[in-house]
Amino acid sequence: MKQNIYDHPLFFEQYAALRNTGITYNDFIEQPAMKSALPVLEGLRILDLGCGTGQFATYCIENGASSVTGVDISSNMIEQANRENKHERIEYINMPIEDLELPPGQFDLIVSSLAVHYIENYDGFVEKASGLLRQEGSFILSTEHPIVTARREMNNWIHDEAGNRLHWALDDYQEEGIREQHWYIDGVIKYHRTLSTLINTLIAHGLVLEKVIEPQSIPAGLELMPGLSNERRKPSFILLKSGKK
Amino acid sequence: MKQNIYDHPLFFEQYAALRNTGITYNDFIEQPAMKSALPVLEGLRILDLGCGTGQFATYCIENGASSVTGVDISSNMIEQANRENKHERIEYINMPIEDLELPPGQFDLIVSSLAVHYIENYDGFVEKASGLLRQEGSFILSTEHPIVTARREMNNWIHDEAGNRLHWALDDYQEEGIREQHWYIDGVIKYHRTLSTLINTLIAHGLVLEKVIEPQSIPAGLELMPGLSNERRKPSFILLKSGKK
Repeated sequence: MKQNIYDHPLFFEQYAALRNTGITYNDFIEQPAMKSALPVLEGLRILDLGCGTGQFATYCIENGASSVTGVDISSNMIEQANRENKHERIEYINMPIEDLELPPGQFDLIVSSLAVHYIENYDGFVEKASGLLRQEGSFILSTEHPIVTARREMNNWIHDEAGNRLHWALDDYQEEGIREQHWYIDGVIKYHRTLSTLINTLIAHGLVLEKVIEPQSIPAGLELMPGLSNERRKPSFILLKSGKK
Repeated sequence: MKQNIYDHPLFFEQYAALRNTGITYNDFIEQPAMKSALPVLEGLRILDLGCGTGQFATYCIENGASSVTGVDISSNMIEQANRENKHERIEYINMPIEDLELPPGQFDLIVSSLAVHYIENYDGFVEKASGLLRQEGSFILSTEHPIVTARREMNNWIHDEAGNRLHWALDDYQEEGIREQHWYIDGVIKYHRTLSTLINTLIAHGLVLEKVIEPQSIPAGLELMPGLSNERRKPSFILLKSGKK
């Protein structure tokens, strides 16, 4: 079953409103970390697995990428991408990542930003990415941190009576699989995986781990959204950069 | 400052009593995982950083290791090792790991079992291990999981009024450094490091990550100490196996 929450009308409307404010969580935490991990983009053929509205594709083109292929399950996302981030060197494909069939070894860089935790078959996902990557190419994925997805009951900041955050609640760490969450709509499904699974699966598919990043907010984020300092208390995201050797 | 809690008289007495019962936490969780990660030991020259009483050194010899060098800061530990786990192919060195000076590249396998979280200079520790390892050699370290060491206040199971464990409390994740704990005696110092630091430091010193293990109890442990099922709720340890490429 391939989840497509971004095509749920209510979800997409609210998600779009959030994105349109111009300040989102990801812009200050995950995206700067992703960009810091990128190689020089000049001349690269790039695949973006879970490309959303194509902002990252445009970033790649602006930085000299030779081509960008963006894949997303959501037709809402791909429509918006074609309106807002159209370019002759960008191709958008509206398809579940799992169904993507392209000739092997044709990308210099594959990125996947915060998509993996929606995907049931992580092993198949990594196998596909590794297959599409050329020798010496780079694969960078970001996902929700296992510390965040572990506990089945998902309201994980524990507060005192005055509303102060006491600590982050962790549980069920080794119980991999579905976590159901309310995020604008009920029943958004995420998949919890341990750190071992996230990393060992990359290694099993011929990738060499090059860097782990557990990002914090950049200073601009802390100014605009002081609550982002809580990222120091528990990491929301993890980025894994690997290379095909 | 090199911490040597195992030479504190009260600590060592109580620790020895624990070890002598024959059933300890580590025997069911960390040690089986460590052994599962070992290469074939036949003919290997092995270095054990933080060798304690030499049980693992004996295990290596029994499994065909060519030689074992065990290093430990605690003279209590080394004395007991020389009494209980003496062998012509085992050499014990009573010295802080940080001070060890041996010719480079002479070991086929380096292990370090639950020592790293007592060591202030992890970067220097990894640099030393990598230097002592021959090309193609393996380095396996285990340490307390960052999930366990993160929160400054160290009593991390949160209980309800009836004494049931509600969840594990996590906090202060990005604040690396000293954690003070009562473990038999007051003021036992451990060092918290993020997962990123644990892994990226290996990579920075020329090691390629081969496997991450977040061990759970083996079945025999669950029978003898049913509380070990809590390892499924939060991991106590993490093992990192790497190779020099």
